[in-house]
Amino acid sequence: MYTRAKLIAQIRSKKSFLCVGLDTDIQKIPKHLLDQPDPIFAFNKAIIDATREFCVSYKINTAFFEAMGAQGWESMKKTFDYIPKECLSIADAKRGDIGNTSDQYAKAFFETLGADSVTLAPYMGNDSIAPFFKYQGKFGIVLALTSNPGSADYEQQKIGDEFLFEKVLKNTCQLGTPENLMFVVGATKPQEFEIIRQHAQDHFLLVPGVGAQGGSLTEVVKFGRNADIGLLINASRSIIYASSGENFADAAALEARTLQEAMAVYC
Amino acid sequence: MYTRAKLIAQIRSKKSFLCVGLDTDIQKIPKHLLDQPDPIFAFNKAIIDATREFCVSYKINTAFFEAMGAQGWESMKKTFDYIPKECLSIADAKRGDIGNTSDQYAKAFFETLGADSVTLAPYMGNDSIAPFFKYQGKFGIVLALTSNPGSADYEQQKIGDEFLFEKVLKNTCQLGTPENLMFVVGATKPQEFEIIRQHAQDHFLLVPGVGAQGGSLTEVVKFGRNADIGLLINASRSIIYASSGENFADAAALEARTLQEAMAVYC
Repeated sequence: MYTRAKLIAQIRSKKSFLCVGLDTDIQKIPKHLLDQPDPIFAFNKAIIDATREFCVSYKINTAFFEAMGAQGWESMKKTFDYIPKECLSIADAKRGDIGNTSDQYAKAFFETLGADSVTLAPYMGNDSIAPFFKYQGKFGIVLALTSNPGSADYEQQKIGDEFLFEKVLKNTCQLGTPENLMFVVGATKPQEFEIIRQHAQDHFLLVPGVGAQGGSLTEVVKFGRNADIGLLINASRSIIYASSGENFADAAALEARTLQEAMAVYC
Repeated sequence: MYTRAKLIAQIRSKKSFLCVGLDTDIQKIPKHLLDQPDPIFAFNKAIIDATREFCVSYKINTAFFEAMGAQGWESMKKTFDYIPKECLSIADAKRGDIGNTSDQYAKAFFETLGADSVTLAPYMGNDSIAPFFKYQGKFGIVLALTSNPGSADYEQQKIGDEFLFEKVLKNTCQLGTPENLMFVVGATKPQEFEIIRQHAQDHFLLVPGVGAQGGSLTEVVKFGRNADIGLLINASRSIIYASSGENFADAAALEARTLQEAMAVYC
């Protein structure tokens, strides 16, 4: 159970709208952790302990855990269980399928793993993501405009006089409200945010790809925020792999704190 | 390692282009299996043993296994390991994400689970699915036109003078060849297949949603086949839940055989 009001209160209290992305790769974590019984969880736990005061959300990238099979799912479950209750937990899974299959995905992420939210891919249309909006106190976070070059292939193409991502925003708003629906938005251009906020005025936007670069943070806040901030800005690798040495948690804390301090002025 | 030539040879030899879909739900399998140490695998094993001679492919719907957490991934791994080597194994996972994340998904399905192929969702564009085409002897099966009502929301919308699903077909053909690329096509209308075969003449199409209804099988074959058949027709629930009693495997075999016999005239 996680609510929009709780997220806003956390942002005001911590003066942060930072989401820490756990793209935990066994190849990249400090070597001294490999002796642990569950190195992936040991790493995530240390990162969470070190960054908790500077962020309001943790995003778990399911691909990195699935790559390790059943053991990876064990580590993922332990990580979801360990995420502090005041923080919004996000399963970055980009799921979406026909109704009875999406029912099962919703069960996997909201019930079995206990995530507060899950990212969704809308290609197959509204009925393919609708099952995620049947839950109380859970969020579906729908891909709208992503930041990768491939966003030009379809998302930024026009259907009639609307971009595909705009159509996704409009259609998806029929499924949920700002209380259970967010969007993934990799935009940085003012005109893109203008379109997005036209359709999703009160929704939170999950913005990936902002690292320690103050520049892009400033732009995103300038064009993307709403009255409640309405932004969750994610940083993954720049925080969790800030150091590959024994000081990795301290280095992660420092990176997270730098971003939090840059965000504090807006909160 | 699975090749298009091998699939075609199997189709000719078994006189079948049937794919059996393992949407295995603990709530729906026969009650007497619940005493087994791994009821999900016990069910899948019995279904595979019973249907193997009538089909050329098995499709595992990952959502149903993920809903059971790490234990579900164990059952999924055991099932992939058990699928006979002459059959194409499909992970119906509908993944797609930024490049370094899709690298991890490709690793999860092609390496950790050992699937021959995986279904992919193209919303984020070509770079989001490209990593799956770096593997030798593996297939990416890209969502083009699906059969659910939501396919009208985006897939059947026009970008310029092309449907979105048509654009997906064209763009994706830049990533692979019929040797490593297939498409998910839920079409039944002649004019849809005409468009699809225009862009994907030699590719195999994975066609979901055809049950024991001979009528729609006839239509799909009539409009969708190419010189090598070029179709994998999936049936899931109509086969695996043909009976909920102790005779479930025999009932599944009968359903699969009925479909195989309907297909034999075309092979």
